[in-house]
Amino acid sequence: MKKGQNSKLKIIPLGGLEQIGMNITAFEYEDSIIVVDCGLSFPEDDMLGIDLVIPDITYLKNNMDRVKGFFITHGHEDHIGAIPYVLKEINVPVYATKLTNGIIEHKLREHNMVTKVKRKVVKYGQHINLGCFRVEFIRTNHSIADAAALAIYSPAGTIVHTGDFKVDYTPVFGDPIDLQRFGEIGKKGVLALMCDSTNAERPGYTSSEKTVGKTFDHIFADHVNSRIIVATFASNVDRVQQVINSAYKYGRKVVVEGRSMVNIITIASELGYLNIPDKTLIDIEELKNYPDEQTVLITTGSQGESMAALSRMASNLHKKITIQPGDTVIFSSSPIPGNEKAVSRVINELSRKGADVIFQDTHVSGHACQEDIKLIYSLVKPQYAIPVHGEYKHLKAQAKIARELGIDKENIFILSSGDVLELDENSAAVTGEVPVGDIMVDGLGVGDVGNIVLRDRQHLAEDGIIIVVLTLEGDSGQVVAGPDIVTRGFVYVRGSESLMDEARMVLEDTVSYCEQKNITDWGKIKNEIKDSLGEFVWKKTKRRPMIMPIIMEV
Amino acid sequence: MKKGQNSKLKIIPLGGLEQIGMNITAFEYEDSIIVVDCGLSFPEDDMLGIDLVIPDITYLKNNMDRVKGFFITHGHEDHIGAIPYVLKEINVPVYATKLTNGIIEHKLREHNMVTKVKRKVVKYGQHINLGCFRVEFIRTNHSIADAAALAIYSPAGTIVHTGDFKVDYTPVFGDPIDLQRFGEIGKKGVLALMCDSTNAERPGYTSSEKTVGKTFDHIFADHVNSRIIVATFASNVDRVQQVINSAYKYGRKVVVEGRSMVNIITIASELGYLNIPDKTLIDIEELKNYPDEQTVLITTGSQGESMAALSRMASNLHKKITIQPGDTVIFSSSPIPGNEKAVSRVINELSRKGADVIFQDTHVSGHACQEDIKLIYSLVKPQYAIPVHGEYKHLKAQAKIARELGIDKENIFILSSGDVLELDENSAAVTGEVPVGDIMVDGLGVGDVGNIVLRDRQHLAEDGIIIVVLTLEGDSGQVVAGPDIVTRGFVYVRGSESLMDEARMVLEDTVSYCEQKNITDWGKIKNEIKDSLGEFVWKKTKRRPMIMPIIMEV
Repeated sequence: MKKGQNSKLKIIPLGGLEQIGMNITAFEYEDSIIVVDCGLSFPEDDMLGIDLVIPDITYLKNNMDRVKGFFITHGHEDHIGAIPYVLKEINVPVYATKLTNGIIEHKLREHNMVTKVKRKVVKYGQHINLGCFRVEFIRTNHSIADAAALAIYSPAGTIVHTGDFKVDYTPVFGDPIDLQRFGEIGKKGVLALMCDSTNAERPGYTSSEKTVGKTFDHIFADHVNSRIIVATFASNVDRVQQVINSAYKYGRKVVVEGRSMVNIITIASELGYLNIPDKTLIDIEELKNYPDEQTVLITTGSQGESMAALSRMASNLHKKITIQPGDTVIFSSSPIPGNEKAVSRVINELSRKGADVIFQDTHVSGHACQEDIKLIYSLVKPQYAIPVHGEYKHLKAQAKIARELGIDKENIFILSSGDVLELDENSAAVTGEVPVGDIMVDGLGVGDVGNIVLRDRQHLAEDGIIIVVLTLEGDSGQVVAGPDIVTRGFVYVRGSESLMDEARMVLEDTVSYCEQKNITDWGKIKNEIKDSLGEFVWKKTKRRPMIMPIIMEV
Repeated sequence: MKKGQNSKLKIIPLGGLEQIGMNITAFEYEDSIIVVDCGLSFPEDDMLGIDLVIPDITYLKNNMDRVKGFFITHGHEDHIGAIPYVLKEINVPVYATKLTNGIIEHKLREHNMVTKVKRKVVKYGQHINLGCFRVEFIRTNHSIADAAALAIYSPAGTIVHTGDFKVDYTPVFGDPIDLQRFGEIGKKGVLALMCDSTNAERPGYTSSEKTVGKTFDHIFADHVNSRIIVATFASNVDRVQQVINSAYKYGRKVVVEGRSMVNIITIASELGYLNIPDKTLIDIEELKNYPDEQTVLITTGSQGESMAALSRMASNLHKKITIQPGDTVIFSSSPIPGNEKAVSRVINELSRKGADVIFQDTHVSGHACQEDIKLIYSLVKPQYAIPVHGEYKHLKAQAKIARELGIDKENIFILSSGDVLELDENSAAVTGEVPVGDIMVDGLGVGDVGNIVLRDRQHLAEDGIIIVVLTLEGDSGQVVAGPDIVTRGFVYVRGSESLMDEARMVLEDTVSYCEQKNITDWGKIKNEIKDSLGEFVWKKTKRRPMIMPIIMEV
């Protein structure tokens, strides 16, 4: 291994740097590549039928022999979700703190891969040597316990990557973010800071998670006569802890409902990240043994997800819980962009069933606001700023903060996925590009749904399909059956029979025309059918269903 | 006409009272029915391919001879959009203020109906007698000029309907809301108040439209060296006026872009609702004759609508305007619930092209906040409160305000569409229900897309379609061609050929099985094909495409 003076460090974001989701970044120095995080994202509105999206890791596969390991900052899906897919192709160790590792283990078990991926649990302050790199885990705070920032030491200099973080001086579990260590590393000289941008548009400081606990206490004190239902993010263990604390204080039993939440709570309890007083947690089946006002339900569905427990309760589809007038429902969350309408719908349904819905002061963000970001910059004092994690507008807002703090405009880099940023203390520049992209997962299929399929689904969704079937006699080319018409997703009412009768006449004309003109090429016949029927339907309905002629031969 | 002591007034909401959109309410007293507003709503996410939604007016059609007229409170789509569809079936006069009437006239012209609908322009303070009713138009303020509240005088008592309103002491155009008249009518005794609930969850007062003008001035002063683009709601004429004022003050020419905005600006100018200094407005083709810093573009697209002018500019699809680094783009709007993500997407695209995007203090709401609502209640002092306009949670928030102001719980009615509320000064109760519903408009089709079609579109959108075609010999029932398989929206990659080969084998087995078992009923054969192929595809892909067997006979 040659550590030449001339080598630079390369930083290559391989997934959604521009949008929240798919956090995965390669760090490359000569023969060594390490990867930070390995997330998935959820499908955009126009990705019809897609379950989730994972990053295209062609670049890593092409450099397989140089990839040394994955470092995971925390256990959220947008940082760990693609591990089962990616590690299937690149089998290197995964480094993470204890709870993060526990969540990854559960995920790998679901994919029958738990024995196939080497995992290492790392403590805060521990250093991992891999190839040219040394990586240190630094304690931070976030909306999930055991979050870490990484100090990545390379021959070209030190990179500090905050992961997703907030500054919480009074966290619910564990210690506050290790600001001293940020300062110490900064003092020694940091080449670049890669800092969470999610809240870079928000002025001020992010409140402590503990403030929510106080609100819960007040709400519990004000609603001693009703059942309480709290919806929050499945992975926010500290939030769940605080609901349990309030429940215990006010003599209520707690039920946890929703598959993903039950999973995470189980993992967190086993690993010691939750402190549940004896006999506080009960099974959902035991609920009937307690009066409503002595129970609390903690549930998934705070984002209005239609299949989550709370949405099913709101729409009377939950098998075990029915919303009753007088129930108090707390949304301990804020809607992720895009979910606002779904959340509103659930709130309206709950209100209509007589529930009292509370959503004020019951959530704090897990991400640093502007003043917190300034604090980290001031401790780390990086030469270069590389805002990460957020939409483009958030990255740009952090870039503005960095400029205000005295970092030169040309030392601030807003990277796009695939950009290769080469840097050392002398210079930094985007010098190239590697292939990146969205791999869509639909059912068991990974990457088998592409743009053509999506375009067809969009077309089918808009106006449906008209299928025209025609049987020709092989030798003569004469029509022996059909043309028959079948439609789906087009129209289906009284009156449409006559439209279809007319359509059939159009088709018969078209078929006669083809026979007269001696058009026997199937492709040409199909095109004639598409054209004539398409025009007829557009004229009559101003719709453009997919028209699909099928010719059979006997 | 008998005005018996025992007759009650009926109030029947006929469209989206529970959700924003489709405002249409019938007021009925003995042989007279009048209708307030006639709105449409935009399709929900699950209404695939639908263009817009209009109310089911079966009740009005069944009582056609008693319907006397429509009273329109203001010119927004959710209050006027269904007029061309509804008035085609019920030909009675439409009463509205001047600008509202102008907008309706334009809409009717687009539907070739302008001569077919009788319209009457009404002045504030004017009273209209129709059957048992007298209706007075009262001046209010809103995010469109010429908004009116209605005092509906009936033998059973007076109803005050606010329409959509805000209290603006310093409106841009015209006079402030006529609070004196609300007080005067209240003093004489009001049976029920139907008050706008949109902002009933928001504390405080709604700011004057004029505050936005001041912000525009500041932004124009701060950005003298760049082109300015302002996106806002097409119908907010006062907002456009204020942009024009700032432009004039800072020596800029103004271009209006976006079809709906050009339409409304044209109508508003012709009717005298806009005051445009000479030579300030220029055509988009003239833009090139002026330096960027002497121009302002006012455009549609503030909601991130993908086909609107601003979105097309952001994604480089606009034929005449290209976003340049340094452009200042002002979002003079706030996202309507459900549009947040689309708006974010456009902001990110604009930022990425180097535009400076501003969206703070550049919008005020057109709806009354809590303290404004309390003001109206205190002037009108109704016996009954009927919160209108808003989602359920908003109606409930207004109900809470009404209770705080001393109205008994049993005198507050949150109505659902179709509810028949019967009331007079002695009592009020929901006594029945009339049929209501969503009529979906898709292209030229009104109501021809129903739930079956939507369910099919949803199914097609999720997983696509597999079509199986089979030709049988008529007499013997033997297979003479096929089974052939065609798919759309399912899979389309290397590897899927072998899946299709296997599927064909499954089908051949199924067909042989049918032949052996002498199954000749086409329905049964189709079911066998659906079952066997469906199971195979699910096992292999965990997807459930629509499977559509088609049998032909020769």
